[in-house]
Amino acid sequence: MIVRNLAEANRTRRRVVSKGWESTRLLLKEDQMGFSFHITTIYAGADLPMHYQNHLESVYCISGAGTIENRETGEKHPIHPGVMYALDKNDRHILRAETEMKMACVFNPPLNGQEVHDESGAYPLEAEGV
Amino acid sequence: MIVRNLAEANRTRRRVVSKGWESTRLLLKEDQMGFSFHITTIYAGADLPMHYQNHLESVYCISGAGTIENRETGEKHPIHPGVMYALDKNDRHILRAETEMKMACVFNPPLNGQEVHDESGAYPLEAEGV
Repeated sequence: MIVRNLAEANRTRRRVVSKGWESTRLLLKEDQMGFSFHITTIYAGADLPMHYQNHLESVYCISGAGTIENRETGEKHPIHPGVMYALDKNDRHILRAETEMKMACVFNPPLNGQEVHDESGAYPLEAEGV
Repeated sequence: MIVRNLAEANRTRRRVVSKGWESTRLLLKEDQMGFSFHITTIYAGADLPMHYQNHLESVYCISGAGTIENRETGEKHPIHPGVMYALDKNDRHILRAETEMKMACVFNPPLNGQEVHDESGAYPLEAEGV
């Protein structure tokens, strides 16, 4: 059994800080669960175009408010606590935060650890661990 | 892109109620994400011996307080918001809730939909969907 604590993980390389967001990766590829699990903070006002070409992702909103736009269809959905979205078709999307949002994110395949978005809005399949 | 809302899902067969807990399954096998994602409520006072022999599971505490006991080693860990545990070795365990707890759970392989624990504390690999 693995037991980890967000407050402790925030003081390690599990916490990755980027432009408009930060993410603390509580489970990674090395844990051999078949997915990775992250608690991600989207900063208030962030406007993040993303396109995970190499990963499927689900995102559950724990707190905060914003919108998710599906760039394949133009549809927009409000995000608030209790809303989940899943990028089951590697959908191009834009996540916008009205207030700071806390999200529980699952990636398949699992991240290695140090991934940040490349210029296309994707994570690479290979990256340094923690 | 799939978008689902906990409040709406709670009014469907995605919400499964059992003894000491209930779970609303926002992503399932049919969604083809390679994992399932559930928001699970453990009722205050529940004392739940479990043994997922067919699944790996991670559990992240969103709210509430309790303990997780690893029955393989006897170790106990406090559960509070920000704590995650992962049953990476199909570990036999007991989850106890001091107060009502809300947990974000990920299963690999994904659940079908209507699973409840069998007498050994496991979920079967096959079950009815939603």
